[in-house]
Amino acid sequence: MHRIALSCTPRRRASGLLSRLKSTAVLEPIPTPEEIRSPLDAWAPCPSGKERVVVLGTGWGGFNLVQEMTSKPGMIGTALGRPAPNPNVAVTVISPANHFVFTPLLPSTAVGTLEFRSIQEPVRSLEGINYLQAKGRSIDYDRQVVRCVGTHTMSGMRTFEVPYDKLVIGVGVKTGTFGTTNVAEFEGKSVFFLKHLHHARGIRLRTLELFEIASYPSTCDKERRRLLSFVIVGAGPTSCEYASELHDFVQEDLSRVYPDLIKFMSITVIEAGEDILTPFDQSLRDYVKDLFANRSIEVRLRTAVKGIYAFKHLEYKQEGTKAILSDGTELEYGLMVWSAGLAPTVFTEGLDSPDLWEKDRIARTAAGRIVTDEFLRVKGREGKVWAIGDCAEVEGKPLPQLAQVAQQQARYLARVMGGRQGEEEKPWSYFTLGAMMSAGAFKGIYDGSLFGDPHGWNTSVARLSGVSAWAAWRGAYWARQVSLKNKVLIPMYWIKAQLLGRDVSKF
Amino acid sequence: MHRIALSCTPRRRASGLLSRLKSTAVLEPIPTPEEIRSPLDAWAPCPSGKERVVVLGTGWGGFNLVQEMTSKPGMIGTALGRPAPNPNVAVTVISPANHFVFTPLLPSTAVGTLEFRSIQEPVRSLEGINYLQAKGRSIDYDRQVVRCVGTHTMSGMRTFEVPYDKLVIGVGVKTGTFGTTNVAEFEGKSVFFLKHLHHARGIRLRTLELFEIASYPSTCDKERRRLLSFVIVGAGPTSCEYASELHDFVQEDLSRVYPDLIKFMSITVIEAGEDILTPFDQSLRDYVKDLFANRSIEVRLRTAVKGIYAFKHLEYKQEGTKAILSDGTELEYGLMVWSAGLAPTVFTEGLDSPDLWEKDRIARTAAGRIVTDEFLRVKGREGKVWAIGDCAEVEGKPLPQLAQVAQQQARYLARVMGGRQGEEEKPWSYFTLGAMMSAGAFKGIYDGSLFGDPHGWNTSVARLSGVSAWAAWRGAYWARQVSLKNKVLIPMYWIKAQLLGRDVSKF
Repeated sequence: MHRIALSCTPRRRASGLLSRLKSTAVLEPIPTPEEIRSPLDAWAPCPSGKERVVVLGTGWGGFNLVQEMTSKPGMIGTALGRPAPNPNVAVTVISPANHFVFTPLLPSTAVGTLEFRSIQEPVRSLEGINYLQAKGRSIDYDRQVVRCVGTHTMSGMRTFEVPYDKLVIGVGVKTGTFGTTNVAEFEGKSVFFLKHLHHARGIRLRTLELFEIASYPSTCDKERRRLLSFVIVGAGPTSCEYASELHDFVQEDLSRVYPDLIKFMSITVIEAGEDILTPFDQSLRDYVKDLFANRSIEVRLRTAVKGIYAFKHLEYKQEGTKAILSDGTELEYGLMVWSAGLAPTVFTEGLDSPDLWEKDRIARTAAGRIVTDEFLRVKGREGKVWAIGDCAEVEGKPLPQLAQVAQQQARYLARVMGGRQGEEEKPWSYFTLGAMMSAGAFKGIYDGSLFGDPHGWNTSVARLSGVSAWAAWRGAYWARQVSLKNKVLIPMYWIKAQLLGRDVSKF
Repeated sequence: MHRIALSCTPRRRASGLLSRLKSTAVLEPIPTPEEIRSPLDAWAPCPSGKERVVVLGTGWGGFNLVQEMTSKPGMIGTALGRPAPNPNVAVTVISPANHFVFTPLLPSTAVGTLEFRSIQEPVRSLEGINYLQAKGRSIDYDRQVVRCVGTHTMSGMRTFEVPYDKLVIGVGVKTGTFGTTNVAEFEGKSVFFLKHLHHARGIRLRTLELFEIASYPSTCDKERRRLLSFVIVGAGPTSCEYASELHDFVQEDLSRVYPDLIKFMSITVIEAGEDILTPFDQSLRDYVKDLFANRSIEVRLRTAVKGIYAFKHLEYKQEGTKAILSDGTELEYGLMVWSAGLAPTVFTEGLDSPDLWEKDRIARTAAGRIVTDEFLRVKGREGKVWAIGDCAEVEGKPLPQLAQVAQQQARYLARVMGGRQGEEEKPWSYFTLGAMMSAGAFKGIYDGSLFGDPHGWNTSVARLSGVSAWAAWRGAYWARQVSLKNKVLIPMYWIKAQLLGRDVSKF
């Protein structure tokens, strides 16, 4: 029976990109209406004759697009030109993460200033959508289907196809290691990325674990120094915000909870480039560098991590990990946060894989980003496939991989998908609101130079540093929360952290 | 050098009870003052000449004892006879869990009615104590030291000794499997206990995972039925509260998020005994049974689980798990919560291990609980070692293993340890406040029969069921929270769950 064949994907080990792509050859066909038994399949192949919009990814691009397309605009929304949900469109969202993460606040959760669940929103909270917790694997442009694999390998790996009339790719990027020796091997053990909630949780638990080990009577001072050495690789906004949050955590909580251990602690920021916070104006960079200097956070510029190695402490017979730097120095550490770069996802890389026929490939930039025209349409797939966010780049108009870019592209595309008249004639244009960052201890920076359209007109509105920028940072991020729940929880936890301190339980 | 020897416990694989006990032979000696380098060691061997009170465990017994001993009583506390902290006592707490869990609310966190961090309190939030995140391994009564092993095996297993003048054992019990086939093997995969926060998190994530798998188009209805079959083993208060919470979760949230899947879902409670909720009066049991019947929660009495087995779905080629019951029936399931019994911990079992010399053993009951006199002193170790909570039993006066027993013993012992005059002459007596349970959907039960001292006078005050008992349940548990933080967070999450629903994100 066909239906059974559909339900019976044999367990398959997808190892590496090639096999992952090749294995798609044996996938099941789309079910015909007769084969559909469960209402869950009703959206595919969509017998109701609705237009099938499939969105890959639930980040700043994907989530905001679907939210704009499915939720009622309300008074302000209407004023801002948000269309009402189009009843003739059936939206299907495909993403391994069943929630949207408000990434700018991730560093806060890594130390417990905010709780993890207060900065995320379930995809399923959006009404009238179909959601599949799966990864896009490849696209069949002729049959207009996305080949997917379920993320729950328990009880067999599930693979299936999802048909589309319009496809939006918003799969984002992953953390880049530049092939640095052993970074991947130690990831989740002593090296942590900072891109997803489980990364932040890993950092939080590891931090507390290190302090507990350091407080054992059988731990000697030299080892305490090693265990409590925190290394941050990369000096972008995420890294600097984490360094600041960690400093606050030490000042406000750890110094009270582990008073005897603080003197063994150190924070080091390692940056391969010429300076920290390159998106910001020089004056603001210097401001942050001065702050870090006063907090004895060491910043090492023009230094790269060559590799990470485990070693056995000859004197103390304890295992440890150390980073070897480009200047030859060795740095023993307990926790390393790696936020040094971005790289295309496996899915994006597969889109122009040599394994594909020429006709099935799409163009990508040197950096691996999908090339779109100024209507965000993927080159050569106009009218069928769009790409937004970090994984895409408008040809000739490169933009930084920022949340506000993805969000503005999502809003534009929501109007296009909403089927508003004449919308498609108007190309997408970017309006930068400037860059902001929290520097901890009620301080922050805001850079309003280049306010406007970097490729059109723009003007410098303001450069702020100190409390005003910090207040602006909190205000702006609170206002941008996508749900009432988080608008309530976040200030609540901000106040709690201030009055009652951060939680140091480990479980 | 002695100090270095102390810092260099070679990595040791402790496999099973025996090797765990034998390996203690090669442990390091207590550091002498000359050897102490770090202030962290100052408490051991306690040169300041304070009386060293060591507490094992941070459950209802251990945590409440330490909190009573170290925190200022305040007006109400003083009125209740709580002593001020004794400046001549140095308290050291040893426990693998660095936090106290308000266990009666665990079932609520397993479905997201409450968040995990809102029902726990860090041990380190108690002032003026020394804490070690370690497991007690054995006791040397002659040298008056507890042998411990650190719980962080990363970077080598740490073992050390902690000297005591007075030792309180409050290590509690673990979940008992009665050697049922494969329960231990599947624990954390498709079988979950419900005793710690990580258990509750496991249940919550697994529940959401099952619904996501069931919603794949390639999942057939028969398998959806299997995946969404929830089996609860044991019909005590914890099991019945979880069943109720799960029902609320389905009614209030899952039915909205997965409308097409609810019809595939089933909840089954399996109890080997004659009836559910044996601590409660018959009328109240029947009340809950009627509730469950109306909610189509199936209750199978006089049925035991013989074993758990993995199988391959012949028709659908998917792996699944099934339980084989004592009546011969096979029950395919997606999630099993095992709350069927209690068993002594490895540490408790070791206390009268045949490996020990006769003089080093202490008496345990047939059920494996440590025998104490009515002053809670361990038989044969009077004045040196006490035992409280689930792991202990007053000779001739067996009591149920309840939070309120441990808490009252902790309060009594706090007065004894506080060194109040004449306190030791007064034996401990128990005052039961009755038993209560939430049955979900704003309903609950309270049994006030046996109100008073089960071994002395007692009277039946009231039996409640319905909304009144539910309100009493919430009120009582809110009032018993050990910290201001939780007294704020818990009602906040209760309201949030009611107004905005429970969170269904999985990470």
